[in-house]
Amino acid sequence: MSAAARARRLDPELEIVAYERTGYVSYGSCGLPYLISGVVPEASTLIARTPAQFARQGIETHTHHEVLAIDTDQQTVKVRDLDEGRESSVAYDRLVIATGGSAIRPPLPGLDLEGVFVLRNLEDGIAIKRFIAEEQPSRAVIIGGGYVGVEMAEAFVERGLQTTMLDMQPQVLDNFDPDVAQKMQDELERNGVTVFVDDAAQGIEGDGQGRVRAVVSQRGRHEADLVLIGAGVRAESLLAKEAGVELGAQGAIAVDDGMRTSVPDVYAAGDCAETFHLLLDGPSYVPLGSTANKQGRVAGTNAAGGEAVFKGVVGTAITKAFDLGVAVTGLTEKAAKQLGRPARAVSVEHGTRAHYYPGPGSIHVKLVWSDLDGRLLGAQIAGPVAEAKRIDVLATALHHGLTIEDLKGLDLSYAPPFAPVWDPILVAANVAAKS
Amino acid sequence: MSAAARARRLDPELEIVAYERTGYVSYGSCGLPYLISGVVPEASTLIARTPAQFARQGIETHTHHEVLAIDTDQQTVKVRDLDEGRESSVAYDRLVIATGGSAIRPPLPGLDLEGVFVLRNLEDGIAIKRFIAEEQPSRAVIIGGGYVGVEMAEAFVERGLQTTMLDMQPQVLDNFDPDVAQKMQDELERNGVTVFVDDAAQGIEGDGQGRVRAVVSQRGRHEADLVLIGAGVRAESLLAKEAGVELGAQGAIAVDDGMRTSVPDVYAAGDCAETFHLLLDGPSYVPLGSTANKQGRVAGTNAAGGEAVFKGVVGTAITKAFDLGVAVTGLTEKAAKQLGRPARAVSVEHGTRAHYYPGPGSIHVKLVWSDLDGRLLGAQIAGPVAEAKRIDVLATALHHGLTIEDLKGLDLSYAPPFAPVWDPILVAANVAAKS
Repeated sequence: MSAAARARRLDPELEIVAYERTGYVSYGSCGLPYLISGVVPEASTLIARTPAQFARQGIETHTHHEVLAIDTDQQTVKVRDLDEGRESSVAYDRLVIATGGSAIRPPLPGLDLEGVFVLRNLEDGIAIKRFIAEEQPSRAVIIGGGYVGVEMAEAFVERGLQTTMLDMQPQVLDNFDPDVAQKMQDELERNGVTVFVDDAAQGIEGDGQGRVRAVVSQRGRHEADLVLIGAGVRAESLLAKEAGVELGAQGAIAVDDGMRTSVPDVYAAGDCAETFHLLLDGPSYVPLGSTANKQGRVAGTNAAGGEAVFKGVVGTAITKAFDLGVAVTGLTEKAAKQLGRPARAVSVEHGTRAHYYPGPGSIHVKLVWSDLDGRLLGAQIAGPVAEAKRIDVLATALHHGLTIEDLKGLDLSYAPPFAPVWDPILVAANVAAKS
Repeated sequence: MSAAARARRLDPELEIVAYERTGYVSYGSCGLPYLISGVVPEASTLIARTPAQFARQGIETHTHHEVLAIDTDQQTVKVRDLDEGRESSVAYDRLVIATGGSAIRPPLPGLDLEGVFVLRNLEDGIAIKRFIAEEQPSRAVIIGGGYVGVEMAEAFVERGLQTTMLDMQPQVLDNFDPDVAQKMQDELERNGVTVFVDDAAQGIEGDGQGRVRAVVSQRGRHEADLVLIGAGVRAESLLAKEAGVELGAQGAIAVDDGMRTSVPDVYAAGDCAETFHLLLDGPSYVPLGSTANKQGRVAGTNAAGGEAVFKGVVGTAITKAFDLGVAVTGLTEKAAKQLGRPARAVSVEHGTRAHYYPGPGSIHVKLVWSDLDGRLLGAQIAGPVAEAKRIDVLATALHHGLTIEDLKGLDLSYAPPFAPVWDPILVAANVAAKS
């Protein structure tokens, strides 16, 4: 819908039609955990724009319509109206594929039991919320300790559920370094979540009447009235693949910096498409809402005959659970080492306000840099929720290849209610320079 | 003291001696308004390190010792022990001048009346705090609406004083653009401060017994039991000048990027010295604690025989009063125009969290950029206190000459509890790109 809105702004005459398989367009899917926790009071609050609002902009939307096939020679799509059961063929001059990502369902027995959920679209969120209200489950098991896992752990605890998390990796939040991930695990545990790492789920047990009863893992059996699978996201790219569109990194649709696919007049944007990763210097699959929206604008601009470029991401991500915010940008220390980059890293704990000024407390800042040229490769922050947003300084630094020496000299804002005289980022850079 | 501490770390054998005219070394002078407001409970809380702590590091400090003269040929300083009245001559191999800045006292009749204060050093802060406690003034007049003025307006209101601010400029916070400064004026007024702009103080009236009674300005007479002069800071550079050290921008000590003065073996750092301004591409006088500390480290490193460089500032500053934080980096729109730079500017108001996520509300983001090449020249933010710290992203961008196009593509962190899917900075960049 970002692409549609952008195209409309560029060309008021263009006919713009969107087909959507679910019942909703344009909503904040990252807000689903907060719908379930109750921070967001109802599903409608998450909706950014309704079909009626798009219609007033001259953008036609069809919900409960699934595109079954794309014919790139004829430039048509085959659409099925899921309510009426009718199929039709629709012509296009330019096509933007924005099929998003789908929740990965690991091959576990028992996935279809009642009470087992994934959280991907608004309908998933509504279903979980309703299940909690109606069935009053008392024990939740979360399989997977990624972003959705930790956010949902908070939501379940807020809703009064005894919550257990299983992660097959040796740590939660696998795309963080272990020292930062440990802080998240500690925060979950401090708030009553039972966390098992290095423990893969092996199956989901039913009660004999089609309802979930427990999750069996390598290291134990965990009773559950509700199970959430948070095993990550994969690009929803089958439709594109079957149409002959080239796939790239991790099965996502390959695109250039104008969001053009391998097929003329076909664009792709969002969680179905790959992203250029500036630190990997190549395509990657990083499905995030902020990136999806940037890509959508670029796809919409170019599909409408304009000229726009999306240069790529540096891998910035942020999340919170309870009173802890964590953020990452660029490469973690372990990723840099896996890639064979000669990397060094330091971590500091430092106050976020002048030592005499009341504030939220300290943050943990980790910097990872190249041993060859001193360039920053990545950074992580953990600390009081809002303070994690300081990662953006380091994300900006990564975009332009700043070195540790450059970081040391940054003229970051200082006054006692905002930072100590040495901002924590400068402290980390000074420590890095001396190490 | 930053220079001393740094030199000690580099060379454990070096003899390091510091002379200080006042009774205190190493304290948070930016915290003085919060000492007076009561946020900081007592003066000792502001002290970062005591003479005894320095002594344990092998740094000798002498408070109540004033350096009267520097003989750069003989490499000696003449020191007066203010308590004992004795003078002596002390030899140096390397000298770091860190005399700081002093509060500007405008030539107003009545400056010496009891109840008239400046706020520069810890003794000033203690005196104001004691005056409020002992004399229980009920009306305060602040002459000058700069950083100290707005911070002290908050402090006086917190202490229950009826507070009036006079600013001779057409706006408070003269180093912001009027649209942002207006928000601060509104916030002051909303909290009961009476603000007069375009209104220069002309004199301070006594009660006939040596105590302040009122401030007379161009446009009125303002009764006062307490007057604070917040007329800015000037470099305390007379000692250096008399020693033949060259002065530069606005009378501050001229230094190179190693904090070397025009005289061999003499360094200067902090509010007595000038600073290279990366956007002015020349020296400037920007007395701020964060810069002073960076300069001190560099001076200390080089004085101890190391090699360090301070490249300069981009002019970042931040302050708050009540529930409003304001921050600036680089050039304001008016400064750019005064400098004859072809500049454009946009302002946006945008939420700081996802639209459905509860948060502190919107911020005002202003971007100023070059009409020649699209490079960012400066930025300002006003909004809920902690949100103003987002200016650091734009300060980092300024250090490396980012354009509006570059800003649009920044991979800033996104999750509902931290930002909307389009971060306010990206929204501002998108609006700028379209303007």
